Amino acid sequence: MNKTSQFHPEPLYDVSNLGHVELYTPCLERSIRFFVDVYGLDLVSTQGDSAYLRAWGDHDLTSLKLTAAKDAGVAHIGWRTMSNQALDRRVSALKAYGIEGQWLDGDVGHGKAFSFIAPSGHRMELYHEAEKYVPMPDKKPYLINQPQKFSGRGVAAARIDHINILTHDVVGLRNFADQTMGFKLREHLVPGGQGEEVGAWMSLMNKAHDMAITKEPSKGASGRLHHLAYAVENREDVLRAADIFMENDVFIEFGPAKHSRTQGFFLYVYEPGGNRIEVFSGGLHIFTPDWAPLQWGTEEKGRSTAWGLGVPESFHKYATPNVAVPAADELTRAAAFAALSE
Amino acid sequence: MNKTSQFHPEPLYDVSNLGHVELYTPCLERSIRFFVDVYGLDLVSTQGDSAYLRAWGDHDLTSLKLTAAKDAGVAHIGWRTMSNQALDRRVSALKAYGIEGQWLDGDVGHGKAFSFIAPSGHRMELYHEAEKYVPMPDKKPYLINQPQKFSGRGVAAARIDHINILTHDVVGLRNFADQTMGFKLREHLVPGGQGEEVGAWMSLMNKAHDMAITKEPSKGASGRLHHLAYAVENREDVLRAADIFMENDVFIEFGPAKHSRTQGFFLYVYEPGGNRIEVFSGGLHIFTPDWAPLQWGTEEKGRSTAWGLGVPESFHKYATPNVAVPAADELTRAAAFAALSE
Amino acid sequence: MNKTSQFHPEPLYDVSNLGHVELYTPCLERSIRFFVDVYGLDLVSTQGDSAYLRAWGDHDLTSLKLTAAKDAGVAHIGWRTMSNQALDRRVSALKAYGIEGQWLDGDVGHGKAFSFIAPSGHRMELYHEAEKYVPMPDKKPYLINQPQKFSGRGVAAARIDHINILTHDVVGLRNFADQTMGFKLREHLVPGGQGEEVGAWMSLMNKAHDMAITKEPSKGASGRLHHLAYAVENREDVLRAADIFMENDVFIEFGPAKHSRTQGFFLYVYEPGGNRIEVFSGGLHIFTPDWAPLQWGTEEKGRSTAWGLGVPESFHKYATPNVAVPAADELTRAAAFAALSE
Amino acid sequence: MNKTSQFHPEPLYDVSNLGHVELYTPCLERSIRFFVDVYGLDLVSTQGDSAYLRAWGDHDLTSLKLTAAKDAGVAHIGWRTMSNQALDRRVSALKAYGIEGQWLDGDVGHGKAFSFIAPSGHRMELYHEAEKYVPMPDKKPYLINQPQKFSGRGVAAARIDHINILTHDVVGLRNFADQTMGFKLREHLVPGGQGEEVGAWMSLMNKAHDMAITKEPSKGASGRLHHLAYAVENREDVLRAADIFMENDVFIEFGPAKHSRTQGFFLYVYEPGGNRIEVFSGGLHIFTPDWAPLQWGTEEKGRSTAWGLGVPESFHKYATPNVAVPAADELTRAAAFAALSE
Repeated sequence: MNKTSQFHPEPLYDVSNLGHVELYTPCLERSIRFFVDVYGLDLVSTQGDSAYLRAWGDHDLTSLKLTAAKDAGVAHIGWRTMSNQALDRRVSALKAYGIEGQWLDGDVGHGKAFSFIAPSGHRMELYHEAEKYVPMPDKKPYLINQPQKFSGRGVAAARIDHINILTHDVVGLRNFADQTMGFKLREHLVPGGQGEEVGAWMSLMNKAHDMAITKEPSKGASGRLHHLAYAVENREDVLRAADIFMENDVFIEFGPAKHSRTQGFFLYVYEPGGNRIEVFSGGLHIFTPDWAPLQWGTEEKGRSTAWGLGVPESFHKYATPNVAVPAADELTRAAAFAALSE
Repeated sequence: MNKTSQFHPEPLYDVSNLGHVELYTPCLERSIRFFVDVYGLDLVSTQGDSAYLRAWGDHDLTSLKLTAAKDAGVAHIGWRTMSNQALDRRVSALKAYGIEGQWLDGDVGHGKAFSFIAPSGHRMELYHEAEKYVPMPDKKPYLINQPQKFSGRGVAAARIDHINILTHDVVGLRNFADQTMGFKLREHLVPGGQGEEVGAWMSLMNKAHDMAITKEPSKGASGRLHHLAYAVENREDVLRAADIFMENDVFIEFGPAKHSRTQGFFLYVYEPGGNRIEVFSGGLHIFTPDWAPLQWGTEEKGRSTAWGLGVPESFHKYATPNVAVPAADELTRAAAFAALSE
Repeated sequence: MNKTSQFHPEPLYDVSNLGHVELYTPCLERSIRFFVDVYGLDLVSTQGDSAYLRAWGDHDLTSLKLTAAKDAGVAHIGWRTMSNQALDRRVSALKAYGIEGQWLDGDVGHGKAFSFIAPSGHRMELYHEAEKYVPMPDKKPYLINQPQKFSGRGVAAARIDHINILTHDVVGLRNFADQTMGFKLREHLVPGGQGEEVGAWMSLMNKAHDMAITKEPSKGASGRLHHLAYAVENREDVLRAADIFMENDVFIEFGPAKHSRTQGFFLYVYEPGGNRIEVFSGGLHIFTPDWAPLQWGTEEKGRSTAWGLGVPESFHKYATPNVAVPAADELTRAAAFAALSE
Repeated sequence: MNKTSQFHPEPLYDVSNLGHVELYTPCLERSIRFFVDVYGLDLVSTQGDSAYLRAWGDHDLTSLKLTAAKDAGVAHIGWRTMSNQALDRRVSALKAYGIEGQWLDGDVGHGKAFSFIAPSGHRMELYHEAEKYVPMPDKKPYLINQPQKFSGRGVAAARIDHINILTHDVVGLRNFADQTMGFKLREHLVPGGQGEEVGAWMSLMNKAHDMAITKEPSKGASGRLHHLAYAVENREDVLRAADIFMENDVFIEFGPAKHSRTQGFFLYVYEPGGNRIEVFSGGLHIFTPDWAPLQWGTEEKGRSTAWGLGVPESFHKYATPNVAVPAADELTRAAAFAALSE
């Protein structure tokens, strides 16, 4: 029997993938310029105070919504279901769990969605119907199994990959995600092998993680974002991204290096609005049906990075909205670093 | 609704992955030496006329069985199910389809298996219970989410990935695989956009293919192998493999290059027994729930390779067992050819 | 004693590098668009019927001059000397050899130059004084040891690397280049180990080649170009270039693959004017002072490519100006060929 | 005029390359095992308390001599000259500078050598005659332009590349190296743009550095080694090396990352004897004849790494012989540190 869930007799595949994320930014125009010119996304639409973007490898019309707001952070996280029936089943499970929520008519790129607030305070939505991207002639790919022509602009982020959110109760949130949506726990971190769990990596199908949950360091905070990640095809693309960020005065917080958990090759930067954004490649894939959740602890070489690179303190402390406010308007290299080390 | 199956109202995930393959070889010792010294697998066990091997990234004990025989070819293909219940469901579906089969007690590395002959003449088996690999101290990995220490020996093939088999009736076999086991058709090839389908690429979950089905070119042949593929982590590993094969006088038939279908980065060689073996990396992953099968044809740039590299004639004609001897000029490395034709 | 020259008692380092090349093109605007938008060069200046371009890693102002002409081909090849004294010494050596030439005042990007016609019919020039590139603020690199900001546009060719020219007398031309300019013969090709030499790879310092000389296949032709190559940093950049060319309908003739001679990782395309252009990476570097010229022949595995990839017939026959039209079936991407033959 | 030397009217190319280095180690057997099994060198010969090794891409018989000694460190550095005449000229220049030295008969792999002590206290030797490596049949490469078959064992370090040595007088030592041997200053580091120079990167021909000179942090120390580097072909090989080191419990001090100076992609580890060893790839190459030495300072983004990775304190303090014990918390992999301090 599949050991990755304590709630389902057999593995549940009703939720398919991370469909889209809405981020808040205090400087919408600069955030758009970062995501388009440097990160390499395409701007699909603007509506009021929001902009909709997509990566060249995303199949749906849009995977990122940027909305002007006073503070950075994640507005909501959209999980796409396998079908409308699967959507109904998951909504029933949420209600059975005691979650209040409401149906929304939809947004640019997708149809009706069930919106709810997870126990961690993060707004999420489940939906199935999405608009497939149809390229205009100048964006048509040479290969028909690719949604869009590869432009190679900037980092050329290829597709939305995963999100990392903070919570005071890691175990509670991962049980919720498992029980209601079928997220499979793949790895978790319990420093010293006992005491509190401070990280959990969960996935929907073959990936090592679609959602990571890590311990919220600030007492009063709720619903905060650690990072949003898009994938690129290989490690050389991550190294190339580092050069692109360097040339464009984007603050590089951490990486490129290899994580121990997930074995992903990572690079973290801050977009102008302050949200931490990752360029991600590789990592392990899970094909065996009897993957049991792996518990990491210091006695088991529980370092965050495979090759021994130390984790910057900001990586454990900084999140958005930033309850310990950095110099929000100028997150370029030196200024941001100075702010972080205060 | 998920559009990838005509037989199931919702996507079926009862079969998890390609678990193991048994290949015949007319020169067992030389085949073992190739797979261990050059391809980089580990020898796990020998039993009578058979040897059991594994890649360092395989979670199960063994993914390849080599058995001495008069001719090369594929003896059987082992598909692992998600659970024992899933196994029972699939066996019922096979019987409902009219397939005769029998239960086997198991083999090195796995428990009871339902063995049957697919319409194409290939022997397959479905099983769930498998022996998880437990490394001896000298094989313990540094990272606990990896089954075995990375040795880096030879090509260092990382894990079993997919198989390509030949049949006279591509559509019939892919419908069988969909209906009975839940394989999802991802891409198929109909030259000229009409007439006979000559290729189908099917997968179980997020991969672009776990099984490829291509048109059998020889009238009298049945149950033949086109190739077996193991994955490596990235394209540089494929390029490095080419150097390793070159240095060890292994006949390189095709690649390294990029396929149009699946977008995989490939390299094909012949192992000493004559079976075509691939080193594979990357390729597209399918995360969207509404991937519709893509039909390729010449009017849609239906080339076999993305960058225009021509396909060697042997790639369309040669398979194991080798019922039609390839023309000598297709095999340009004389020593390798001599070895193969022993 | 250094064995790489039969003409100099000690190695001669008066000529430093391939400084610039002037290509003819029958469609100047389209060639400019290719080199800027796809190949990734910057347009520096236009003067009359000529355009001057540079790669982001070139130290001098310009490395490529494109000039409108009836036929494609190479107008002249500019070799830069170490110093003005070195220039004078090389001009004396040319005159001693019997070469007539004349001093030119210079051109965009360089000062006075000695222009002459090599025995193969190619116009070459020697010069020392060149204009160093000074970036405008928006092109300033983050690292001061880089001449220009890395843009990442298109293929992002990094710097001019080498040229391959055709001649009826390979040995004669390489002796001329050695005797007058100090080119060191590194490798040469004599099929069968006897008879006529059909290829010679020569370099100035540590590279495997700055100039390759191959046998002219057309009886009446003279002064033709086989290809001009720019370098990129690594093999992944070459693979990425293949995707960029694919997406932009550029005809890929050969590669990506690894040459046997020089071990360079190559990719050849035709620019819209018809000239063959390479994207090149890696290859061996020569640091030992006693490298003796290596003679390749078929009995010594004298294949053109390391991994066995066959050489397309056009690679041996097609050059610019195109005096012999290649067979249509050598050019498999129909639209690209049509465009080229306009 | 070439601006890279203040001592020579024209660039001097009498010294060709770093030929070999002799390292001391307090645990010869364990050092040999590291260099052979993990770093991937071949053991060529053992003589008394010394072992001679080579990389598969070295043209000479041996590039590394390991000698048992009480403390780690560099015993001598062997620079190979272009010719015997060049050797005589350089010895004359050394004597004119006031250097005492003596002629040695030679050693395994090379003939007569002029041995002397540089002003920094490092023993160096100049020599020309060296034994070319001739592979036994099982080491014969497939490509004749490669000295030895590529084994792919461990890190598979390809060839000796450069050395970094410490001195109290950086400017004095680089002037000595320029004046007597023709080393060209390529980049140097003067923190704050004024005051003392603390680093100089010098090369012989096209490379960015064959020798780096950095400031000795310990008052009483002399003749110490910062690190010895071998090159691999590309950045992926460096990333792969990190996995190999991780799996073999080798302490990784710094990297993989990209240096600002030289732009090399680096990875530093400690071999069992305690010497810092680098795996190096890429970096800039210098082809222009008018490269002027670049001065780095903090006001010019004078960070040590291109992407902002901090330099571990040990990198500035630890050298061999280890006269100042590093703080325990600098060395985070406990087992490795324990091994080093035996």
